[in-house]
Amino acid sequence: MRPYPLLDTINSPHDVKRMLPEQLPDLAQEMREAICEQVSKSGGHLAPNLGVVELTLALHYVFDFGFDRLLFDVGHQCYPHKLITGRFPQLESLRTTGGIAGFPEPRESAFDQFAVGHAGTGISTAIGMARGDQLNGEIDRKVVALVGDSSIVNGLSLEGLNNAGTLQRQMLVVLNDNGMSIGMPQGALAGYFDKVRIHPRFADLKSRAMDVLKKLPAGGALEQIYNRVGEMTKAALDHTHLFDHFGLLCIGPVDGHDLPTLIEMLEDVKKIDSPVLLHVKTQKGKGFEFSSDDPTTFHSPKPFVRHGCSAELITSGRSFTKAYADALIDVMNRDPKVVTVTAGMPHGTGLSDVVKAHPKRTMDVGIAESHAVDMSAGMAKAGMKPFVTIYSTFMQRGFDQIFQEVSLAGMPVRFCMDRAGVVGGDGAVHHGFLDIAMLRGFPGMSLLAAADEPSLKAALEFMRLRDEGPSAVRYPRDNVPEGIEDRECPPFRLGKAHQLAEGSDLAILAYGFPVNHALEARAKLAQEGLSVAVYDARFAKPVDIELLRELIEANVPIVTVEDHHTMGGFGACVLEACNENGLATQGIRRLGLPDRWIYQGARGDQLAEAGIDAAGIARTSREVLAKLRSPRLTGSSQAS
Amino acid sequence: MRPYPLLDTINSPHDVKRMLPEQLPDLAQEMREAICEQVSKSGGHLAPNLGVVELTLALHYVFDFGFDRLLFDVGHQCYPHKLITGRFPQLESLRTTGGIAGFPEPRESAFDQFAVGHAGTGISTAIGMARGDQLNGEIDRKVVALVGDSSIVNGLSLEGLNNAGTLQRQMLVVLNDNGMSIGMPQGALAGYFDKVRIHPRFADLKSRAMDVLKKLPAGGALEQIYNRVGEMTKAALDHTHLFDHFGLLCIGPVDGHDLPTLIEMLEDVKKIDSPVLLHVKTQKGKGFEFSSDDPTTFHSPKPFVRHGCSAELITSGRSFTKAYADALIDVMNRDPKVVTVTAGMPHGTGLSDVVKAHPKRTMDVGIAESHAVDMSAGMAKAGMKPFVTIYSTFMQRGFDQIFQEVSLAGMPVRFCMDRAGVVGGDGAVHHGFLDIAMLRGFPGMSLLAAADEPSLKAALEFMRLRDEGPSAVRYPRDNVPEGIEDRECPPFRLGKAHQLAEGSDLAILAYGFPVNHALEARAKLAQEGLSVAVYDARFAKPVDIELLRELIEANVPIVTVEDHHTMGGFGACVLEACNENGLATQGIRRLGLPDRWIYQGARGDQLAEAGIDAAGIARTSREVLAKLRSPRLTGSSQAS
Repeated sequence: MRPYPLLDTINSPHDVKRMLPEQLPDLAQEMREAICEQVSKSGGHLAPNLGVVELTLALHYVFDFGFDRLLFDVGHQCYPHKLITGRFPQLESLRTTGGIAGFPEPRESAFDQFAVGHAGTGISTAIGMARGDQLNGEIDRKVVALVGDSSIVNGLSLEGLNNAGTLQRQMLVVLNDNGMSIGMPQGALAGYFDKVRIHPRFADLKSRAMDVLKKLPAGGALEQIYNRVGEMTKAALDHTHLFDHFGLLCIGPVDGHDLPTLIEMLEDVKKIDSPVLLHVKTQKGKGFEFSSDDPTTFHSPKPFVRHGCSAELITSGRSFTKAYADALIDVMNRDPKVVTVTAGMPHGTGLSDVVKAHPKRTMDVGIAESHAVDMSAGMAKAGMKPFVTIYSTFMQRGFDQIFQEVSLAGMPVRFCMDRAGVVGGDGAVHHGFLDIAMLRGFPGMSLLAAADEPSLKAALEFMRLRDEGPSAVRYPRDNVPEGIEDRECPPFRLGKAHQLAEGSDLAILAYGFPVNHALEARAKLAQEGLSVAVYDARFAKPVDIELLRELIEANVPIVTVEDHHTMGGFGACVLEACNENGLATQGIRRLGLPDRWIYQGARGDQLAEAGIDAAGIARTSREVLAKLRSPRLTGSSQAS
Repeated sequence: MRPYPLLDTINSPHDVKRMLPEQLPDLAQEMREAICEQVSKSGGHLAPNLGVVELTLALHYVFDFGFDRLLFDVGHQCYPHKLITGRFPQLESLRTTGGIAGFPEPRESAFDQFAVGHAGTGISTAIGMARGDQLNGEIDRKVVALVGDSSIVNGLSLEGLNNAGTLQRQMLVVLNDNGMSIGMPQGALAGYFDKVRIHPRFADLKSRAMDVLKKLPAGGALEQIYNRVGEMTKAALDHTHLFDHFGLLCIGPVDGHDLPTLIEMLEDVKKIDSPVLLHVKTQKGKGFEFSSDDPTTFHSPKPFVRHGCSAELITSGRSFTKAYADALIDVMNRDPKVVTVTAGMPHGTGLSDVVKAHPKRTMDVGIAESHAVDMSAGMAKAGMKPFVTIYSTFMQRGFDQIFQEVSLAGMPVRFCMDRAGVVGGDGAVHHGFLDIAMLRGFPGMSLLAAADEPSLKAALEFMRLRDEGPSAVRYPRDNVPEGIEDRECPPFRLGKAHQLAEGSDLAILAYGFPVNHALEARAKLAQEGLSVAVYDARFAKPVDIELLRELIEANVPIVTVEDHHTMGGFGACVLEACNENGLATQGIRRLGLPDRWIYQGARGDQLAEAGIDAAGIARTSREVLAKLRSPRLTGSSQAS
């Protein structure tokens, strides 16, 4: 990395505190450069981090987070925080195997409280720490939650705010309002934020401040704030703020790139011994024109090359996300009843392409997965065919709604789960490792997986036609396999696997993308003289029991492979179906994700760690066949 | 039932519409009597239904819900709706096997859209139907959501309101504000509702209305409302309403027991072609002193006897809930770090007893399960030992938070899941049938079940001492078994089952309460000369693999029993563990809930339907032993 003279001297936030205020803007500039340089090489979150450089510096300048508590919401804006909490030397390992995570990570640093990548959690965990410290008698520990404007309208945040209003102690919620968050925020409150402007007139400011004071129990810190209001050029106490209703004292908006004001303001609100919301306006992507002009593209870009003021993404193949968008557009072209819904991730899910083709039938509800599911259930009830497009990991937010409004109601809502399986650099907070376990217990649910682009298309067509109940398809954060023109892809039939390659020694049943690794493994094993059949399982619910019966009765050992937790996943579905049907299971070996966390790194490394890449599948297949030939197992059903 | 002259003439809402307005109060009186008479016999929801009699009549009087859409939130206030939509003749079968449900139920009537028992869903499903009808070109279908004041602060409701503000068509949210809902509402917004009072002065009313009109696009319906405002004695257009910020036109509060005003107001708001929130004040338990004076007790009482103006609950044994409360108080007496949190159900979870003993360490956050989990994670991070006390079915709302802030963070949060298994009269919306499947995929999680009061105490003590990661215990909506003084209950040891009875022909491994049915089954089978061992499995994660190995290697057939979905449940944990350890599973037979819905009825009927009562367990045990002796299975591991 290029030299960063100031940043190189920062080993902890104490080094920031020791700096003169006038040095901080230069430090901020170096932090921006370092973040941009790294993300251009490794990919990662860019625009959100560029937006909070000054805010992060100000927070660490004013609070003592070795003792006080800083809770991140979402956490994709934690890079500046990492840079000044001793992790600048590890920046080059960002998001790589064994390196530092792209989200807060308590395993790395005591300055990180929770590993977070899902939105809306910061206020609730902050309240928990505030209450915990209070019960422990440690009331002098300050608590701060840093929350974005898209996160704060998430249901969990709003539940947290409602509860925060009952706190009888200090707690600061910093609302980092960049006016757009991941995409454009959806919902009426987004318009509300637009209306809340920085108040220009001092007189107005003063009378508002007075009103606020009248409403609150008298306190020295409050009066002090009031007296200082005149000195603040761009700030205000706003008593018509939405969050006033939640019982918080609302202050702002203030300019989130004006370090002296931020520091002054934070020094003041730090003293208030009741819950406060400080509204800070920031610019996403601040500091680099290419990212501030197009913060959606540069929210979480792949590696890119900078050319002066512009930047160019390094392209890398056709993603499942892109294939999904094209397939869905085709489905919607043919069926006017199809609608699609996402929850704050139009870019990541491909719906930013779909909306261009079908603007009326493509809906983004913001980071509100629970609502997305229930709204879709309502549309299904009214006769539409909703395709809910949400990452597997975020679908976890809709579990209870899928239970009651979808499954119990028998609504034919279709769930399209991108990022199923391990996700690479985003790490444990984003793996889609539980969707099968989560969904299979719902009566009437059909569970599908796509191995490649043709099977993704075929799965969507099956789901479009299936009005009998809910269905869900999973596909990975990966590119679609290429050069598979000779791979047959007949239409999906409920509960039917599809044989891709013949073999007599062993059968691999792969669910979804691991089909590709299974075929690779088969090729390796063929060179060793082993004859292996490969099946694209296609369905986890219902599983293909006829195929299983055939294989087990023919004493063919089976290896199941899935990019999902082995517990409660596809292999478990196979075991349970066999048990119900009186079939022996000793010949079945299940491969999938282990019962421990897999952290950030290349997706290939993660698959290898779990033993579900081609090498791992081949290794296990050899083991299974070797055991079969050993005398120890004589007498078991598949060896008899 | 006693004669109900007016109610007897109501076969559909059209019969209500044909009545003269002045007849409606008498009809309301009959409806109250009929509901109270029935609930006194069968148990069920009383106070919520008594509060909405007039509101329900007014809604059906004004709207045409054979065509228009009425969406209930929670749904425990649907009895008046059922009475006037053709189900009065079935009232005596309320909540019984084969009878009518205590919640909305589309299988019963086209007037019911969704079966609901979980809070916060009404606004989102209403938006879905509104959007669906709009896309279908059916814009003349009105949509109404009826939501309570405790539900509307749930995260899902707030996500829905935010989205409602973007609707470009009619939608009415009726906020049924009874000022307390299930318990006392928790959170700052509760105080807000208290502040919003019925405006007394016409002048004030008029100026507010004018302000509202100025802010909105001009519309005939709105002007008409404005002109009528003077005639309304107890209503107002309120432009300082919280929900204004969400982009809804907020009207009210109006008196929810004043039929003429309600009807007039609804007629007016019906014409507004943008989203409206009508704030209605009602009295929970209205009409009977005993229920309006103590609406918490009479929210959902067991059967009771009325004596003039008072009523006495018919007591029926010691519940697991009561046993839990006593055990938790004991734990908290001994350990000052233990805190407990519930989400809007202090009465139902027993915490209304705990709060008396430990007011500072007992917290009710209102209907906000997601927040309850994350706040608890925060408290654990600060060194406390949180026991989160939530029904199994409502814990589904915390799935994603248990993933990220609890399991991934390794936080030792303890989950105490009441109402696990089938729940009797509340039916499918409240069964706790997925908690094992939901929780077992989380690395580090320990899963426990309690069979009786001593094992519940022992489980809590194990959890109190376990700081290594999260744990969860399940127990049913049932009474604790009595007369079990000679049943041994050693302390829980991680992953260790406990043998309760010896036997050599077959082993029953029961998880939680079904232990009691297994022991009964064993007694039956003993009379038939069969020798059956019974184990209290105690742990679903990890399962007792040593015990399984011992039994399977000794060729003892195994029957697993659980009050949970067979898919992904305890039996599945057993199968998977055996498969991983190279043990044959053909000798294992799993009993649990089927992959279809079990509807309302006596819990005993539901257990019998699933075949997990004593008779069912005995029947399956006989089958397993009979098959073993048949020649067909010769060659399978346990018969060889």
